[in-house]
Amino acid sequence: MAFVLGKLKFVFRCKKISFKNSLPKRCWASFPNISTINSIYTSEKFGQIRVEGWIIGIRKLKELLFIDVSDGSCPKKLQLTVDKNKVPKDLSYGASVKASGLLQTNKNNQIEVLVDDIKLVGKCHLNDGYPFAQRTPYNPNHDREFIHLRPRTQPFSSLLRIRHKIFLTFNELLDSDGFFNINIPVLTTNDCEGGGEVFMVKPDNNSLIKDMIKENKIEKQNEDEVFFGSKTYLTVSGQLHLEAVSRALKKVYSLGPTFRAENSRSRLHLSEFYMLEAEIAFINNINDINSVIELLLKKSIDKILSNYSEEIQSYYKLTGIKHEEQLNILNRILNENFTTITYNEAFDILDKKRNLFKQYPKKDETFSKEHELYLVEYNNGIPIFIVEWPEKSKPFYMKSVENLSDKVEAVDLLCPNVGELCGGGVREDNYDILKQKLMKENLDSKLDWYLQLRNFGNVRTGGFGMGFERFLQLLLGITNIKDTIPFPRWPHNCKL
Amino acid sequence: MAFVLGKLKFVFRCKKISFKNSLPKRCWASFPNISTINSIYTSEKFGQIRVEGWIIGIRKLKELLFIDVSDGSCPKKLQLTVDKNKVPKDLSYGASVKASGLLQTNKNNQIEVLVDDIKLVGKCHLNDGYPFAQRTPYNPNHDREFIHLRPRTQPFSSLLRIRHKIFLTFNELLDSDGFFNINIPVLTTNDCEGGGEVFMVKPDNNSLIKDMIKENKIEKQNEDEVFFGSKTYLTVSGQLHLEAVSRALKKVYSLGPTFRAENSRSRLHLSEFYMLEAEIAFINNINDINSVIELLLKKSIDKILSNYSEEIQSYYKLTGIKHEEQLNILNRILNENFTTITYNEAFDILDKKRNLFKQYPKKDETFSKEHELYLVEYNNGIPIFIVEWPEKSKPFYMKSVENLSDKVEAVDLLCPNVGELCGGGVREDNYDILKQKLMKENLDSKLDWYLQLRNFGNVRTGGFGMGFERFLQLLLGITNIKDTIPFPRWPHNCKL
Repeated sequence: MAFVLGKLKFVFRCKKISFKNSLPKRCWASFPNISTINSIYTSEKFGQIRVEGWIIGIRKLKELLFIDVSDGSCPKKLQLTVDKNKVPKDLSYGASVKASGLLQTNKNNQIEVLVDDIKLVGKCHLNDGYPFAQRTPYNPNHDREFIHLRPRTQPFSSLLRIRHKIFLTFNELLDSDGFFNINIPVLTTNDCEGGGEVFMVKPDNNSLIKDMIKENKIEKQNEDEVFFGSKTYLTVSGQLHLEAVSRALKKVYSLGPTFRAENSRSRLHLSEFYMLEAEIAFINNINDINSVIELLLKKSIDKILSNYSEEIQSYYKLTGIKHEEQLNILNRILNENFTTITYNEAFDILDKKRNLFKQYPKKDETFSKEHELYLVEYNNGIPIFIVEWPEKSKPFYMKSVENLSDKVEAVDLLCPNVGELCGGGVREDNYDILKQKLMKENLDSKLDWYLQLRNFGNVRTGGFGMGFERFLQLLLGITNIKDTIPFPRWPHNCKL
Repeated sequence: MAFVLGKLKFVFRCKKISFKNSLPKRCWASFPNISTINSIYTSEKFGQIRVEGWIIGIRKLKELLFIDVSDGSCPKKLQLTVDKNKVPKDLSYGASVKASGLLQTNKNNQIEVLVDDIKLVGKCHLNDGYPFAQRTPYNPNHDREFIHLRPRTQPFSSLLRIRHKIFLTFNELLDSDGFFNINIPVLTTNDCEGGGEVFMVKPDNNSLIKDMIKENKIEKQNEDEVFFGSKTYLTVSGQLHLEAVSRALKKVYSLGPTFRAENSRSRLHLSEFYMLEAEIAFINNINDINSVIELLLKKSIDKILSNYSEEIQSYYKLTGIKHEEQLNILNRILNENFTTITYNEAFDILDKKRNLFKQYPKKDETFSKEHELYLVEYNNGIPIFIVEWPEKSKPFYMKSVENLSDKVEAVDLLCPNVGELCGGGVREDNYDILKQKLMKENLDSKLDWYLQLRNFGNVRTGGFGMGFERFLQLLLGITNIKDTIPFPRWPHNCKL
């Protein structure tokens, strides 16, 4: 290996080759040469194969048993055709099996495995309280009672695969457009957005706290503040952190868990949920942010529908969603230009129909869910950006609209089914104005670092947050947000 | 649009076409036709361009100013060549600018922009405490004092870009190998692994708690349990959750934040860190898990070095890492087969050299960092899997080794620089043995759901966890873990 100019590139290449040679071919599959059902339907050749999975259906016909198996790799099942005499004892719905045999198409032109050998791996003790039975559709409320077994249902395993692909899609789209993923902290000493809706955090171990108090040599320290030296919360938004990084990497995002300690059990709220947040430097005004939101939504829905149409169609079918209605909703999002109206315009539309609502809209306050949904309906299901919000309805960091001092450059995007999907804004970039706003909120010493960002190579930034689970609700027509996430948390519910 | 068989596919396609037609061409860039420095060096044609960024260097030569600009898109800077008379007031190191001009190669064959127009966007008030100066390298300890400004340093902006790409690489590799990303919950009522090293969580708002106590109609409820109905913690591992899902989707993983309330300020520990956890169903024994770990490590390092070599080489240079030494370390990981030895073998190696260590190794206990690093050194820097661990040194859910009842099928992977990089194991899949183990730990009622998993279509599963930040330390030769994450948290430190 000659150490010459350009050596490093050479060394890197070198590695690649010798590495590929030295690796065993198998490894990922848990026992050699296992075919996944997904690979069988997409690429595998016919012939002798080995499969493993869980039984989701059994039928008998004369001397044969037809066993439908799922292995979680895709929505499709694989039919194992087994001679009655070869069937092990205790085979039932829900049991796990391994089998080998000949992959072929049968008389009905269906793919099947003509089984040589089938082994029971684990019995399903159906009478010990297994909550699912063969060919029986259940209500999501039923499945939610068994959160540890729910992934075994066909609709929910499908949901989990789609959720995974959507997660990847957002990451890939944002990466390809030059955004960098920044892991914002869950633990934060910054509670300025929460307004009482935050969770606080401390070590569970009291003797650890006592030891640290001794170590700290401070006599009357509040126990909640000992570990980190300051009261610590779970994040409600990584926006302020993203702002700091956007002032170096220009386009940044995060897609991680955020938290609300709200006593709400609505079909649109969780105590722990995922939020896609993006922040962009060198913007001009709110229209730049709206463009990014609209394009990201269209691009992601388009990519997901194109790449995972089979899984999504299967999900609609399994959950009883009407394909046509759901696709109409998505078609409008894909094909229509989103509408932009001001808060005042939106208020006037609602106020004229005030008697339709349980609660009248109140001037200069945020809208309720019924108001949001009405506005979208009024706009024929086309998403609406609401801009120019009353200052007092939004957090302190929003930039004032030029020549409209009581309004701020904030935006809410309203969509069918879910109402508010995104919220965003242009951040106050004027050092002096921001300083005043911070002082008014008594945050000037705590957020001194945030003000400092404007003092060194200042640029205007803006961004938005989008509820990831609400996006899933919109895309998949899911009524209850608790059915979009593997382990939902809400008041009185933190199972497992 | 004819509603015939195969309609859905058609509808999906239809959308795609009309959607692409209706979209504006711009959008992602914050003002039209801005070039990123990355695009200039990779694909852009010469000619008239517009750029924006922050000044990282200024030199004067006669009537010309040479201004080096970074926009965060890549490690490279772009030289703006400006006529002295066109330079706005207050231009300095750290200031933000927008410029337009002719992109060309100059006499020295360097790419430059011959600037027509340059505007100051935001002044950098260097005398107001800006902690960085032009062409001055700083110690990481210095940069860490200014966590909100640290992304503006060249080494740390590079680190953030690499971290982003590594995050993506793991997701892509695991996806392409059939793993599904499962978002494990941060909030959990399961504290069985923490052994006192967990954080507990409750709403910060006391009046919310009081209202909920009234609502719950339970007289003497512990305040810590009111919100979720049970004491709630921050997750230390998503393993048990992943096990539940692996018994439906077969191969699952998560890459998210996990937490430890340890009073440790070591260069290898954080209170909040990212962990890659994977769980695989239908495995045979620990070797299946070790194969996955070895292949994932080799594949990821290979892919990252191949795809991001320029950024990584630049990072090594900026941080003073010796390329050759660092590549030697990685070469061994890529090209050598990892070694597997038992706990007893490892103990004997250490025990023979006990006088080398601050603490003697203790039989049947875990090893300390110095022991781990010695074992790797002893093995010429080749990673080592340590298997067959004493039962009492590992959590209850580890499966006993056949014919060795006091040993369990657990594994630690030891690597250069960081010691333990991964920990994993085969989970106890025997219903009766697991039940006994749970009863012994007094967890049988709390983890009844976990036992149930074994009662319905049982399969053997196993998996591992890898510290994401430790992987970054290994790959990039980073001494202190606090320099691998944008907003590090450790005792007494939860800034921002």
